Amino acid sequence: MSAAALTDLSRLCVHTITTKPWPVEEAARRFSAAGIGGITVWRDALAGRDIRATGRLLRELNLRVVSLCRGGFFPHAEAAGRQLALDDNRRAVDEAAALGAPHVVLVCGAVPGQPLAESRKQIRDGIAAVLPHAEAAGVKLAIEPLHPMYADSRSAVNTLAQANDLAEDLASPWVGVAVDVYHLWWDPSLETEIDRCGRNGNLLAFHICDWKTPTTDLLNDRGLMGEGCIALRQIRGWVEQAGFAGFHEVEIFSNRYWAGDQAAFLEKIVGAYYQHS
Amino acid sequence: MSAAALTDLSRLCVHTITTKPWPVEEAARRFSAAGIGGITVWRDALAGRDIRATGRLLRELNLRVVSLCRGGFFPHAEAAGRQLALDDNRRAVDEAAALGAPHVVLVCGAVPGQPLAESRKQIRDGIAAVLPHAEAAGVKLAIEPLHPMYADSRSAVNTLAQANDLAEDLASPWVGVAVDVYHLWWDPSLETEIDRCGRNGNLLAFHICDWKTPTTDLLNDRGLMGEGCIALRQIRGWVEQAGFAGFHEVEIFSNRYWAGDQAAFLEKIVGAYYQHS
Repeated sequence: MSAAALTDLSRLCVHTITTKPWPVEEAARRFSAAGIGGITVWRDALAGRDIRATGRLLRELNLRVVSLCRGGFFPHAEAAGRQLALDDNRRAVDEAAALGAPHVVLVCGAVPGQPLAESRKQIRDGIAAVLPHAEAAGVKLAIEPLHPMYADSRSAVNTLAQANDLAEDLASPWVGVAVDVYHLWWDPSLETEIDRCGRNGNLLAFHICDWKTPTTDLLNDRGLMGEGCIALRQIRGWVEQAGFAGFHEVEIFSNRYWAGDQAAFLEKIVGAYYQHS
Repeated sequence: MSAAALTDLSRLCVHTITTKPWPVEEAARRFSAAGIGGITVWRDALAGRDIRATGRLLRELNLRVVSLCRGGFFPHAEAAGRQLALDDNRRAVDEAAALGAPHVVLVCGAVPGQPLAESRKQIRDGIAAVLPHAEAAGVKLAIEPLHPMYADSRSAVNTLAQANDLAEDLASPWVGVAVDVYHLWWDPSLETEIDRCGRNGNLLAFHICDWKTPTTDLLNDRGLMGEGCIALRQIRGWVEQAGFAGFHEVEIFSNRYWAGDQAAFLEKIVGAYYQHS
């Protein structure tokens, strides 16, 4: 059963990377002025900022800080590299706490040529090692399965079933999963796996955009909702059926949109959110 | 357990599309002269030929005709389109019989925006409708699951588990599956699913190439074995463990290699086959 049309923007969240040309302060003012309810902040947008002050600004603008993107990238061929990754993930947790974000999204990582099974083990060990710090900071870790076309270098976690297995194996209230339609829309087990993580409380985030035909770039050619073939309302229906009542986060990497006028793009996002999400 | 290194070319097969600039006759002479054991013919390479005569030429050159590529593309929004697809698949079966190819590889198809569940049903119905013709012609149909990045427009069958389910559901000795490492290498259930189709006699074909980092084009940037991150020997080990004793088919779509000297490329293929496959 597909979800009903959306009638307000209270649960719309936009990622700072979606409107990458805007500094976080401008993005926040624009999102707020448009009546958008939430913002997810990418760490690059915080460079050089007092993170607590940025968090205060976002709240003053009536924006919910939905999440911090991103931690992860646990696998490395050398132990020293894996240690650096742990340090960086603990910093990400601290940044989320300072900003007031309830969770950090994890793009888990992969090393080209390293066996996937080894990368998957390093990911599990990495998350387990960061969990005590996350718990102490009151920040959750959201494992985001990435599309199989990123299995070489970005994430060896490529299905929601894998992310669910991992979260359940780690068995902590401080770890869950993030569902991004771009990565998962093709999966014949998606409805089942959304139900699984929703019902056991592990579904922490829901990201939306669209898959264009043709897609001309593996990374930065995502579509605005309605521009592609993803059954957005059907998937939102599954997410809601599973008990998720959080934000719908628009995360679009697009060389095409980044090159254009960001205010016009934000208007399009709002229109597409009502019409297609 | 990884497979042992290969010591001869008797089970090497090259697809005509791999050396696309060569007409099928030249490709066949070159493959034969290099000592390669098999050839898989793409239908475009047969345009304007007497297909029986081409089959005879291939056999005279001591090449095994391993398969015909490709049928499929069953889903369409309109019934008339689905009927055209059935007609075309029956023609593909006839071409395979005329050429002397034991099976037709199926790229099953997808329609952007049509629900995946509907495309999957149309694929099942399409294969079922073609099966009597395939049986009468003595030609098998090999369902090839395609990488999830092709789920929008090329195939709604995106995992080996799905292809296995479909083949088992159709329950005919005239239908099986084709395993292509490019499409499936990332799948955490790959070993299990290879075992499943190998042991029940459904594993009809094994395609190899490599996944490059970065991959710059979704369709035509495949790598030569050894240029990427796919655990080729490990996967071949799984395939052999499952009882497969057929050809290792090199299928590389590459704008880069197609633009270069094909004789030099064929030498590279042979070298990479020994060293990395």
